[in-house]
Amino acid sequence: MCGVIGVFDVDNASAYANLGLFALQHRGQESAGMAVSDGEKVKHYEGMGLVVDVFRDKNILKLLSGSIAVAHTRYSTTGQSKIENIQPLIYPHPDTELEAQIAISHNGNFPNARKLRDNLESEGVKFYTHTDTELILKFFERSTKETLEEKVMDAFSSIPGTFSAIITTKDKMIAIKDPWGNRPLCMGKLNGGYVVASETCALDAMGAEFERELKPGEILVFESGAEPKSYQMEKKEEQLCIFELIYFARPDGIIKGLSNMETRIRCGERGWQESGVDADYIIPIPDSGIFGADGVSNASRLPCKPYIIKNRYVGRTFIMPGQAIRSSKVKVKLNAIKALLQGKRIVLVDDSLVRGTTSSILVHELFDKYGAKEVHVRLASPPIKHSCFYGIDTATREELIAANKSTEEIRQFIGATTLAYLSLDGLLSSCPGPRENYCAACFNGNYQIPLNGLKAA
Amino acid sequence: MCGVIGVFDVDNASAYANLGLFALQHRGQESAGMAVSDGEKVKHYEGMGLVVDVFRDKNILKLLSGSIAVAHTRYSTTGQSKIENIQPLIYPHPDTELEAQIAISHNGNFPNARKLRDNLESEGVKFYTHTDTELILKFFERSTKETLEEKVMDAFSSIPGTFSAIITTKDKMIAIKDPWGNRPLCMGKLNGGYVVASETCALDAMGAEFERELKPGEILVFESGAEPKSYQMEKKEEQLCIFELIYFARPDGIIKGLSNMETRIRCGERGWQESGVDADYIIPIPDSGIFGADGVSNASRLPCKPYIIKNRYVGRTFIMPGQAIRSSKVKVKLNAIKALLQGKRIVLVDDSLVRGTTSSILVHELFDKYGAKEVHVRLASPPIKHSCFYGIDTATREELIAANKSTEEIRQFIGATTLAYLSLDGLLSSCPGPRENYCAACFNGNYQIPLNGLKAA
Amino acid sequence: MCGVIGVFDVDNASAYANLGLFALQHRGQESAGMAVSDGEKVKHYEGMGLVVDVFRDKNILKLLSGSIAVAHTRYSTTGQSKIENIQPLIYPHPDTELEAQIAISHNGNFPNARKLRDNLESEGVKFYTHTDTELILKFFERSTKETLEEKVMDAFSSIPGTFSAIITTKDKMIAIKDPWGNRPLCMGKLNGGYVVASETCALDAMGAEFERELKPGEILVFESGAEPKSYQMEKKEEQLCIFELIYFARPDGIIKGLSNMETRIRCGERGWQESGVDADYIIPIPDSGIFGADGVSNASRLPCKPYIIKNRYVGRTFIMPGQAIRSSKVKVKLNAIKALLQGKRIVLVDDSLVRGTTSSILVHELFDKYGAKEVHVRLASPPIKHSCFYGIDTATREELIAANKSTEEIRQFIGATTLAYLSLDGLLSSCPGPRENYCAACFNGNYQIPLNGLKAA
Amino acid sequence: MCGVIGVFDVDNASAYANLGLFALQHRGQESAGMAVSDGEKVKHYEGMGLVVDVFRDKNILKLLSGSIAVAHTRYSTTGQSKIENIQPLIYPHPDTELEAQIAISHNGNFPNARKLRDNLESEGVKFYTHTDTELILKFFERSTKETLEEKVMDAFSSIPGTFSAIITTKDKMIAIKDPWGNRPLCMGKLNGGYVVASETCALDAMGAEFERELKPGEILVFESGAEPKSYQMEKKEEQLCIFELIYFARPDGIIKGLSNMETRIRCGERGWQESGVDADYIIPIPDSGIFGADGVSNASRLPCKPYIIKNRYVGRTFIMPGQAIRSSKVKVKLNAIKALLQGKRIVLVDDSLVRGTTSSILVHELFDKYGAKEVHVRLASPPIKHSCFYGIDTATREELIAANKSTEEIRQFIGATTLAYLSLDGLLSSCPGPRENYCAACFNGNYQIPLNGLKAA
Repeated sequence: MCGVIGVFDVDNASAYANLGLFALQHRGQESAGMAVSDGEKVKHYEGMGLVVDVFRDKNILKLLSGSIAVAHTRYSTTGQSKIENIQPLIYPHPDTELEAQIAISHNGNFPNARKLRDNLESEGVKFYTHTDTELILKFFERSTKETLEEKVMDAFSSIPGTFSAIITTKDKMIAIKDPWGNRPLCMGKLNGGYVVASETCALDAMGAEFERELKPGEILVFESGAEPKSYQMEKKEEQLCIFELIYFARPDGIIKGLSNMETRIRCGERGWQESGVDADYIIPIPDSGIFGADGVSNASRLPCKPYIIKNRYVGRTFIMPGQAIRSSKVKVKLNAIKALLQGKRIVLVDDSLVRGTTSSILVHELFDKYGAKEVHVRLASPPIKHSCFYGIDTATREELIAANKSTEEIRQFIGATTLAYLSLDGLLSSCPGPRENYCAACFNGNYQIPLNGLKAA
Repeated sequence: MCGVIGVFDVDNASAYANLGLFALQHRGQESAGMAVSDGEKVKHYEGMGLVVDVFRDKNILKLLSGSIAVAHTRYSTTGQSKIENIQPLIYPHPDTELEAQIAISHNGNFPNARKLRDNLESEGVKFYTHTDTELILKFFERSTKETLEEKVMDAFSSIPGTFSAIITTKDKMIAIKDPWGNRPLCMGKLNGGYVVASETCALDAMGAEFERELKPGEILVFESGAEPKSYQMEKKEEQLCIFELIYFARPDGIIKGLSNMETRIRCGERGWQESGVDADYIIPIPDSGIFGADGVSNASRLPCKPYIIKNRYVGRTFIMPGQAIRSSKVKVKLNAIKALLQGKRIVLVDDSLVRGTTSSILVHELFDKYGAKEVHVRLASPPIKHSCFYGIDTATREELIAANKSTEEIRQFIGATTLAYLSLDGLLSSCPGPRENYCAACFNGNYQIPLNGLKAA
Repeated sequence: MCGVIGVFDVDNASAYANLGLFALQHRGQESAGMAVSDGEKVKHYEGMGLVVDVFRDKNILKLLSGSIAVAHTRYSTTGQSKIENIQPLIYPHPDTELEAQIAISHNGNFPNARKLRDNLESEGVKFYTHTDTELILKFFERSTKETLEEKVMDAFSSIPGTFSAIITTKDKMIAIKDPWGNRPLCMGKLNGGYVVASETCALDAMGAEFERELKPGEILVFESGAEPKSYQMEKKEEQLCIFELIYFARPDGIIKGLSNMETRIRCGERGWQESGVDADYIIPIPDSGIFGADGVSNASRLPCKPYIIKNRYVGRTFIMPGQAIRSSKVKVKLNAIKALLQGKRIVLVDDSLVRGTTSSILVHELFDKYGAKEVHVRLASPPIKHSCFYGIDTATREELIAANKSTEEIRQFIGATTLAYLSLDGLLSSCPGPRENYCAACFNGNYQIPLNGLKAA
Repeated sequence: MCGVIGVFDVDNASAYANLGLFALQHRGQESAGMAVSDGEKVKHYEGMGLVVDVFRDKNILKLLSGSIAVAHTRYSTTGQSKIENIQPLIYPHPDTELEAQIAISHNGNFPNARKLRDNLESEGVKFYTHTDTELILKFFERSTKETLEEKVMDAFSSIPGTFSAIITTKDKMIAIKDPWGNRPLCMGKLNGGYVVASETCALDAMGAEFERELKPGEILVFESGAEPKSYQMEKKEEQLCIFELIYFARPDGIIKGLSNMETRIRCGERGWQESGVDADYIIPIPDSGIFGADGVSNASRLPCKPYIIKNRYVGRTFIMPGQAIRSSKVKVKLNAIKALLQGKRIVLVDDSLVRGTTSSILVHELFDKYGAKEVHVRLASPPIKHSCFYGIDTATREELIAANKSTEEIRQFIGATTLAYLSLDGLLSSCPGPRENYCAACFNGNYQIPLNGLKAA
């Protein structure tokens, strides 16, 4: 997944990039990095952990002085955290001890990277890391084109995939979105310069003014004293990842002119039209279900109540020694008050249902511990039946409960009075723009972007 | 402020205490510690930082094997974080290299601790730390009483203050609440044993069953194979800190039979009755205003909307280099969507208004950036006009905006269309039980608990 | 390489094991760990880094209370540091959340571990780590023998290799040396109990009294209230690693009745008899050449002078950015004074010459910067021409200068006036005991211990 | 104590300063820092710990690009390690968020700093730290002089003390030594530019060519494209700290034209002339006694033997839980071999004897454990009878064994056969240059440099 930030021709660029990274922290918490050009050379710093930890020492941001910055926050898709995966990737590689000339941050997936890499290695090319980013750099280096932008286009054309990337040299910045427009990327203006980011909320955090999203296959070249120039790679039918709107991107991000907040509210409204029930309260699972629940409340005219609360200190690193008390993780994370739930007919709203484990524990508790009379579970998206091969780290098909059970079986498993998903048609009509411009393969198995030999599942 | 946990006669006590600490993390994030008895000796471990960091290594909790645990999470009231302040405090002090016999965790404030300490030092008593806890241990040590519980009572009687404390020896656990009952402490049952905690939500997290709150001045002694025995220190008129209900304690905690969630909803309802206006939406400032806003929505029949969202990664350690972009901290932390706010008459709800800085920036943005038509600010508590001397780290009087400005002046400062606080009468009638049993000194300056010479302000 | 410690039937065993680890720190600085039994269960703690860092928190050693301890300090032979490689390895594996029953620390190499592991995996056995230690545990688990000692013998017989290992259960400790006795292991008495360690200097550090070295293939079983019982695995002709005596083990360790200090002095003496020259001073390269130089001084009656000094703060982690100043690493590490060297004929003594890089820089500096008249290099061991396959991480054959150059070519490369190695015969006659009991494969390529298909080189 | 480094007009200055810091690491291990100017602004980075840890991340040194560097490694004289004490100190203070303009590193002591500070504070001056360095900056700021060098001279004249300091602005560097020349400071040439350092060995590490020591009260101003200009503060009779030569500075440093190595050898020689005995071996206590022992060996014609060895992993942070095994710290740190010592008459040589604890344990072990026949202790310096008030953190007078016991009493305490110190006359005649140019107050109580009211002791 990952988040990318570019800042061009803005004084104190590293400080703004840091703000942008904060706004994209939800896109990855494994590592963060930044490369900054002061017009003469590209400096960089990176580390494992949260943005707040990597750039904890104020001096680091000050040392990264300059007016162009490219930054990255990384989400581990491979399971294993590795220092070498930290972005931006620097070229020439720091181990060569040559001055950095180019830094690249990208977010995405290149399905046949391994094959291409093997080919290059058999030709004697030496790799320093196992990252896709380095593969891009190799193709960049081998490009026989003359201009930077042509070389970049050449490199990304050589490795089919779904990505958004930002590249900086000592005086130019390039932003690029894949030909299917699968991953989001937008640009804005700031203090006379420009910013590029994975989500518009990063622009808000930097105090920048939103201009527009990049077009599928667009390459934007930023040079000092000029308007950004736009180039176009081979263009495909847009296939924006629909999961960004309903799950991954922040609610305060805007995609295709509509905030994700509103999209999610619409999904809740439409869902209610499809499967309303009589009830006392709408209750969201925090924070993921909040906007879906607001939509359900709009459509149903039933009050939306914040009666399930979340312990914000329980993160990924939460440790639970002892098998016997393992299930209490949910209990530590979510809690409620009997007096407010007893005897009530509740509509429990979440954005999606992946494995069903948490829902199962929660629904059973609502009945057994809190005395709910009915618990109707409503999901603001359709059943996830297929894995993603384009960069979203959903579960494997074996783990996806909807790939293996019918809705009725799932209802029984989680113990709900009723269970309903939003229909795919409902989802597509809630999202802004033409429905054929979304990739919804995780819902319908329709992998429009070539998988290059990966088995569709 | 701090949070305390006690677990008695429960297998795997350290794992349960860890769960309890997680639930009390909001009461202090500076350090965490735990002392565990296996019946033969008292072992302990502690460190700076969040519970999840201190007990990150699973082995530590396993090494802390035993069936009695006393744990603590600390909030720094002094400004300076010090390792020596980590609780539980161990007696004899670890530097003596004698075996630990007693561990004590407490939450509270002892206004004349310094004087008592000076007295003891002038008598030649050697102190290892600058903590109040050590002072208690010294009085414990000097007590000429015979039983442990008498010694404990003796020690706490020697140092007037507002506190809740839990003490363990190798085979006994003692819980104690100050004679005014200023700080909360409750007990419950778990797996045939007992637990004690600052808030009931910690009992929920441990899977324990709530029994009751301790009475003011009560001392509960837990011994294996027996019901806990209750003793009574000199009793005063109860003066429970009202700030716990409306601000500090978790919403899912229950005090005097009513959840704080419900108390806060009542405050919102009552506030609306006092100062309702015509509007389109109720919007809470997350997370502090959520339940007040729910109450306002109940009373006003206006929909409550989650249209201001919070970046959960922006914590205390957030660094903002560069004066110019300092105000953007609020922007990074809170965000909204123009399409949902433009032209709307908004009621913005929060639990309290301390300095007014954040509100000022937010209200101005709601008008200027998001196009709100009206912004009515409603606080679910009265103006804070006086400092707390009993352990809550509110601002100094100079910083308290309500101590220095009239409500109209504050309204102008933050730029709101209208501004209204809940009345003190409204607050007291929203809280459970008799109003004379609450300390509301921060609102009315009525310091019922003797200040021992501190200047009331 | 690694170092192992066992402490049996000694109060405060963890504190003694900690002392022992300190004494073995030179055998590995990657990680350290300890497992301690209090008679009822096996507790453990481990971490990456130096002993002083892993056990920095005094509480940890206190929590590891008990009278049996098995400890380990690890040297990374694979290049990549991994947490899973930390020893002792615990059985059942901590991820199973069953109580630990057995802990094993070992030092050595199992050439066909991979094949055996593949075999087991194809039979469906699940591995938690990639360590050889876990393989041993699997064979232990599968053993159909009845007693613990038979199971241990069974397990180690199943995986041919060169090792020393210490195992503890809740009440028994077992020490075992491989049938060729390739890696050192000795035992001693302490406070009425027993200790086992890789080197005798660890016994000194613990204040224990040396008893004897384990015999090749010996298994010693320690049970409370009894003399240790000795068992014998299939015995081979002893092949103790000669590199331990001249390079790896501490000089204050005793092997076969002679301190390594004395062995190294003898090597220096013998080397001088083989290749003495006329000179003014003997100067050791610190610290490795100190005892060889003392021997040279004894034999030559020339004074031994400490005129090359070493910066003790320059360790492995020393970073040297910038190609241009890379060679200065040697300069930062070693320094001298012109006034003491100018015009002098120097005999420079070291224990061995692996790659020749450091020597080359140093010898050239002695001439060019310090004005030496002659520099005669003497090594207290023969040329290393072959790689080690038994656990010592020497360089690959390509890197070994003596595998690729004649002595005269090496002399020219390092710029010495004369260069001489100790002969292999000289080395073997300097070491205690029969020469056929040493593995000297790195010198003569004579790999007596079966390599199981590894190509001798 | 501390060590200071300045690099002027040298490409890659930060890398060279890092080398210099490594060479001065023995002067302080509490913290390290560096300020670098690239001609336009002064950047800086600093942290707690060893040089190798603070500058572990290669990127940091790269980010500190520029051709002027001032660096510092700090020794804690106050006992308590504080982040605010890290040098170089930056002006304006980083908390003001103004660009850094000046960085200052100093080594020394200002006896009446507190009084001066109180005076300034009473005039309303705001201090950010409690450091003497900041006091200097305040006087610098208040100077009404025009040029930088005059302001610097003004500032240092305002605060009498013993110091060496290096200051950098964006384009000038200034080195300054106190009027008594109490602390060492030398300069050299490197790659067409200049370097300044506390000790000459730092010049060696940087590959610089030694030019000369600064004169007492000298101020050297470095500007690009010009020879350094020398100014003179009020000059006093030189009072170089004699402890630098015999104890604190590295043996490979050169002071007054003679290496400390040679000075220490002379001390050993002279000591033997004063108090020789018949013996078998000279044995140094490593590493402090090595050169004194070499001198003893020269004078006595007895062989010097490295038979006591030191565990290099036992540092300040070594933890020893349990009173019972506390004395084993010495055992873990120093070890020997009986076979080499039994029945021998040993002359044990060290540079000095402060408290006598280690010597006592060691001498008793030499007899009891290693069977020495005689142990003659020889110190290469006189008895330390007085505290230092000029910056050396020797013990308090109560702890100084020679301040409280006669030599015969000390001999009995440590258990030596004979004990002899070098005479003060012997020391002074061993040190280079006129004896009246040394401060030997710790030996003779003759505090030539005004103490400003501190009680001489």
